[in-house]
Amino acid sequence: MKKKRVLVLTSGGLDSVTALYDAALQHEVCLALSFDYGSKHNHRELPYAELHSHKLGVEHKVVALDFFADSFESSLLQTGKDIPDGSYAESNMKQTVVPFRNGIMISIAAGIAESRELDGLVIATHAGAHPLYPDCGVDFMNAMGTALKLGTYTRLELMLPFITWSKDEIVKRGFELNINLSETWSCYKGGEYHCGECGTCIERKSAFQEAGLKDPTVYLTEMEIRN
Amino acid sequence: MKKKRVLVLTSGGLDSVTALYDAALQHEVCLALSFDYGSKHNHRELPYAELHSHKLGVEHKVVALDFFADSFESSLLQTGKDIPDGSYAESNMKQTVVPFRNGIMISIAAGIAESRELDGLVIATHAGAHPLYPDCGVDFMNAMGTALKLGTYTRLELMLPFITWSKDEIVKRGFELNINLSETWSCYKGGEYHCGECGTCIERKSAFQEAGLKDPTVYLTEMEIRN
Repeated sequence: MKKKRVLVLTSGGLDSVTALYDAALQHEVCLALSFDYGSKHNHRELPYAELHSHKLGVEHKVVALDFFADSFESSLLQTGKDIPDGSYAESNMKQTVVPFRNGIMISIAAGIAESRELDGLVIATHAGAHPLYPDCGVDFMNAMGTALKLGTYTRLELMLPFITWSKDEIVKRGFELNINLSETWSCYKGGEYHCGECGTCIERKSAFQEAGLKDPTVYLTEMEIRN
Repeated sequence: MKKKRVLVLTSGGLDSVTALYDAALQHEVCLALSFDYGSKHNHRELPYAELHSHKLGVEHKVVALDFFADSFESSLLQTGKDIPDGSYAESNMKQTVVPFRNGIMISIAAGIAESRELDGLVIATHAGAHPLYPDCGVDFMNAMGTALKLGTYTRLELMLPFITWSKDEIVKRGFELNINLSETWSCYKGGEYHCGECGTCIERKSAFQEAGLKDPTVYLTEMEIRN
């Protein structure tokens, strides 16, 4: 059967890098697409998106979205407040939501995919996505999938390989695919090391623990304990 | 009943300017939003979006979308080929499609509307929208509406006041609202005057004829006949 020609949304995080390698096994990956939307951690993520695209011989493109800085409210952005510590379950994490970010990224990616006459667009959203982020849920993704199919000549397919997976299943898949997961970035704070305390660091640590696999990530909290 | 707080997508074209005045009667219009996506006619449209927002005392914002220029294929863009002459029915008009443009604009507007905690987002898509443009159809718009509702905290409403109207009904509504429709722009070529020959000029002329109302537009073709 002819392979599908796809674009993979690749932020440089654990989930999307795993999705990139996973897609490369099954499809013809024509483009790995990243966005620089002015978040505090974009400069830490994007080099990993570039690195893994290069390893796989896939074209990598970064689209700069300058409008977030002056039109959006979120502590995830460089223009926003400090990132709160604590798990996603806590209400103060709501301030890290970037309004409709996934809708915007999927839509721009859809336009680029249609410009290149591709068959599909892969996004690594997983079942552990938090109710805190309304634009991560399966119902939202299905509505976007319908919009993509109806709104393009190519009847572009929104592909959700991890939509029923938990994050620890993605970690396991990453190990199966021999990905060096230390070369992925999660921490919202975007410091030199993963902080170990913000919602996304806590989620990352838990995923390795639940998968029963060694976490190669260097967390700032653990360094301090060692010292 | 408390008025809804809405954002109106306002390109400066005949449909969206009429939608802006129409919305101002029914809702509290908090923002008129335009995009400069590098089309050949943006510089002709945008001043009209600004003008009518000013007349209505509504904040007007232009978001620049630079990524279209280097990532998208369309003769509508400054980076594309020449705009073809002829009606929308003709196959060469397909080259004026900007892939998933409406999906992208609606998504970015949704993020801005959620940042401002608005209730609704108005887009002037009408029933005469051409099958040539897949991201103008009612089914596509309904899917986007579902995505907006599910993907935002505010359960943002995509409002489609003209979705069952033909373009001549929009012209009639513009007259009812005493809008000077000569202060709106349609022509894809973006010259000093409306060319009178491209798909959107032909559609504009027909709408006034079918409405039985005087077309105040100066078309280049008619100037040449006069001289």
